[in-house]
Amino acid sequence: MTMTSAQHSCHRVTTGPIMASRKEHQHVEGPAGEDLRVPVRRIGLTDGTHLDVYDTSGPYTAYLEDGSDLHDLTVGTVRTRETWTHPEPVGGAATQLAWARAGTVTPEMVFVAAREGCDVELVRSEVAAGRAVIPANHRHPESEPMIIGRAFRTKVNANIGNSVVTSSVAEEVEKMVWATRWGADTVMDLSTGADIHETREAILRNSPVPIGTVPIYQALEKVKGDPEALTWEIYRDTVIEQCEQGVDYMTVHAGVLRAHVPLTSGRVTGIVSRGGAIMAAWCLAHRQESFLYTHFDELCEILRRYDVTFSLGDGLRPGSIADANDDAQLAELRTLGELTQVARRYGVQVMVEGPGHVPMHLVAENARLAHEWCDDAPFYTLGPLTTDIAPGYDHITSAIGAAMIAQAGTAMLCYVTPKEHLGLPDRDDVKVGVITYKIAAHAADLAKGHPGAQARDDALSKARFEFRWHDQFALALDPDTARAFHDETLPAEPAKTAQFCSMCGPKFCSMKISQDLKLSTLSTPSTLTVQ
Amino acid sequence: MTMTSAQHSCHRVTTGPIMASRKEHQHVEGPAGEDLRVPVRRIGLTDGTHLDVYDTSGPYTAYLEDGSDLHDLTVGTVRTRETWTHPEPVGGAATQLAWARAGTVTPEMVFVAAREGCDVELVRSEVAAGRAVIPANHRHPESEPMIIGRAFRTKVNANIGNSVVTSSVAEEVEKMVWATRWGADTVMDLSTGADIHETREAILRNSPVPIGTVPIYQALEKVKGDPEALTWEIYRDTVIEQCEQGVDYMTVHAGVLRAHVPLTSGRVTGIVSRGGAIMAAWCLAHRQESFLYTHFDELCEILRRYDVTFSLGDGLRPGSIADANDDAQLAELRTLGELTQVARRYGVQVMVEGPGHVPMHLVAENARLAHEWCDDAPFYTLGPLTTDIAPGYDHITSAIGAAMIAQAGTAMLCYVTPKEHLGLPDRDDVKVGVITYKIAAHAADLAKGHPGAQARDDALSKARFEFRWHDQFALALDPDTARAFHDETLPAEPAKTAQFCSMCGPKFCSMKISQDLKLSTLSTPSTLTVQ
Repeated sequence: MTMTSAQHSCHRVTTGPIMASRKEHQHVEGPAGEDLRVPVRRIGLTDGTHLDVYDTSGPYTAYLEDGSDLHDLTVGTVRTRETWTHPEPVGGAATQLAWARAGTVTPEMVFVAAREGCDVELVRSEVAAGRAVIPANHRHPESEPMIIGRAFRTKVNANIGNSVVTSSVAEEVEKMVWATRWGADTVMDLSTGADIHETREAILRNSPVPIGTVPIYQALEKVKGDPEALTWEIYRDTVIEQCEQGVDYMTVHAGVLRAHVPLTSGRVTGIVSRGGAIMAAWCLAHRQESFLYTHFDELCEILRRYDVTFSLGDGLRPGSIADANDDAQLAELRTLGELTQVARRYGVQVMVEGPGHVPMHLVAENARLAHEWCDDAPFYTLGPLTTDIAPGYDHITSAIGAAMIAQAGTAMLCYVTPKEHLGLPDRDDVKVGVITYKIAAHAADLAKGHPGAQARDDALSKARFEFRWHDQFALALDPDTARAFHDETLPAEPAKTAQFCSMCGPKFCSMKISQDLKLSTLSTPSTLTVQ
Repeated sequence: MTMTSAQHSCHRVTTGPIMASRKEHQHVEGPAGEDLRVPVRRIGLTDGTHLDVYDTSGPYTAYLEDGSDLHDLTVGTVRTRETWTHPEPVGGAATQLAWARAGTVTPEMVFVAAREGCDVELVRSEVAAGRAVIPANHRHPESEPMIIGRAFRTKVNANIGNSVVTSSVAEEVEKMVWATRWGADTVMDLSTGADIHETREAILRNSPVPIGTVPIYQALEKVKGDPEALTWEIYRDTVIEQCEQGVDYMTVHAGVLRAHVPLTSGRVTGIVSRGGAIMAAWCLAHRQESFLYTHFDELCEILRRYDVTFSLGDGLRPGSIADANDDAQLAELRTLGELTQVARRYGVQVMVEGPGHVPMHLVAENARLAHEWCDDAPFYTLGPLTTDIAPGYDHITSAIGAAMIAQAGTAMLCYVTPKEHLGLPDRDDVKVGVITYKIAAHAADLAKGHPGAQARDDALSKARFEFRWHDQFALALDPDTARAFHDETLPAEPAKTAQFCSMCGPKFCSMKISQDLKLSTLSTPSTLTVQ
């Protein structure tokens, strides 16, 4: 691992526990007797009970608030998976997919089963069927394994990364730590500016979650931003470089075929995927088929060596309501289905990416077609935004679509921040984006009847009804904001056990009246019945 | 109209046009030849075109930015409807419902048809069928008529009102002006603290939108907050007082029957509607049926005199995911169906209120049952929130449910602000709540294929693709925030025509590449076809 001066100036990230919470580890025995320390966040409640919740935050929340002595970004975090014993390759593939198909259980499968609270056989069989993926590059031992598939908790990805206009390596590492603190299950480093390699190295060595990239961004930097100058060789070497570093999944826009490009000519917003636009420009300039498509087998061979997961990019996704579910988008999806089959033959894990901008009545159709045409590969969508008219609030326009598409079986949601379409998200935007998408994902898990999903809702609502304000904050997705909002009008500590808040005041609190009522109802059995 | 000293200190509200917009009036001829000046906001675009959008903001956006000389809150705003000629009462009822049933077109019907861009016969027939309401108290001539019904644009209500803990008359009037500036179609004054009468008077005399209330809040103030001390006479007099002032619709929790109360005993969060809790407490204390239910005919007679619309309250709505769609909620809804029939017999317009907290998979069922059991009365819901675990973000948890329930035919959405469950919303919260709900309502209109809904999306997306940044801001639901977010990283004026933003930087803007591509595609006709 090489470190640059840029990273040496970046020793501080956000550390310390989340409000009222303590990091715990569940000790689970791996297939070779390993002690797999599965993380969990234990929220302590004032009534003496606690609630354990899924924890993506890595070691950072185990540190003291002032964590500068405990974590040095130039050293990297704990290499969790380095000591685990992995099975022999199967037919040349040392991938979770190949092992799962062979009926072999890996430490990663045991780990994610414990995290999800399910049987390991469900994990193995879903991975074997290609309905779930465990993105875990052999070279990213720092990651705590997680699973992406519709049978499991809906996951959230946070995009970070600098652009040439703004941001630094230090800021990007902090964004990764910050995003995972609030619940991001994976992080994509979409850097396009300076220091791409160094930024990614710093992120990977310190990341407890899988890291995704779009290799064509770095490849394009290598040819000084001229799409026509791209070659298969430059792209391939970039992919290998990133595989060696430990990237866990890669977006590859191999479904943008030369024949698809004219289908976008009547669109309101053309091609809005950067990778899609780059490949379309290349195809037109060279009057050739996409080198990502023609060299897809070689890509499979490379990714297989590291167990890097494909995230087949939707380079022709709609960028406006007008363009949703159009011929260009669906033609590409057909091609992604074909490529899914190819990758699977190599034993490479595959996800399929989806839109974008889609009106509500067309949302579920996207998940249905993706599952049908891509043989149930995990679907991974950006939003979708359900209207175009609210720049500045696209975390909300897209949370609506994200919740609906997750209910329809989408396995992972890529967040959208309030800055979408307007600028590079800062630290606050990253948090708002993550929390918003945790809401969408959780709402979908409730709707799908996912086992155990409702426990947190019930615990919070019970705390609310019993005026345990501290517990209501602690159980919230964002305890700090919940408390700050409450304290704006009633900052004094006695208000934390008061049977009202400033919304209705003491006399008009329905919950207070209702509580009194509950007591009186219990003491006065009613003989009344309902028709 | 009487004015208090509290109001005299409140001469300033937010005035001035919204970015790049000008208030226009469409001149439409009323049934008696009246000149009905129908407001519209004209958004001017840099390409020389413009887009007209529905305008709820009243005279305030027609004033200069410094509008203090032009609008005096103690005088009130223009009494738009005072000069209109109304038909004779029909069978004792001078209501839009009675007139519509008689086949008579009112100035209000012509006005709303122009606003909605539809035929007046659609308005008349929907009102006649009870599928839509036009809340327009004879005593609120300042209001610009609007229609609430599933065949029309989905509407948004903003709640304002002080509580005993905080806020003043002046602040509440400004909240009304502020909420309608950003698109609130109606405003409910839910004040429970001091100066209830005076606050409402100031709001009504200055409001361009219908005002709703929950009369039991003021009735309870009159008995010093003791639910048991309430009587039918006190409630009735309060209703008359509010009818006389000009309140356009009233939430009446007449569906909370004595027999329903025990059904809530097993709930996680009991009764969370203030009105519901008050009436349940009254029924239990007196061991009698709700006076709202037993005196419902008299209520109908009162409301009919003014053409005040019933909003039949859901006093037993669920306050948590665990309590959604339970027996208590559904028993009350059955009663609301019965009361809808009674009100209609009197010629009184009726809406029916809905939840609350509901997981996504149970959302549509709420709209279906409300329409079925309440004879297609317009459904008016609070959210619903699709999870309980995100206090501080309940505008978002509820926007998901609101968009879905509106898609299922809900006619008006009551906003939820970020302060829900935590405190009284301030000015910023009101704006975020309104914009969030405009998103939900518009997303639903797109999904329902509402005529013309997509024009604004298309205009904004076209501006975005053509890098007309000023137009993208101007067409946004919140132009100020969109521009501020953009300008955080690229504040200079040249960036307003730049073919990139800080999100991806100049080299990686997909829209830029795609635009170039579009030009080259056009100049190089492709002979390629797709399989």
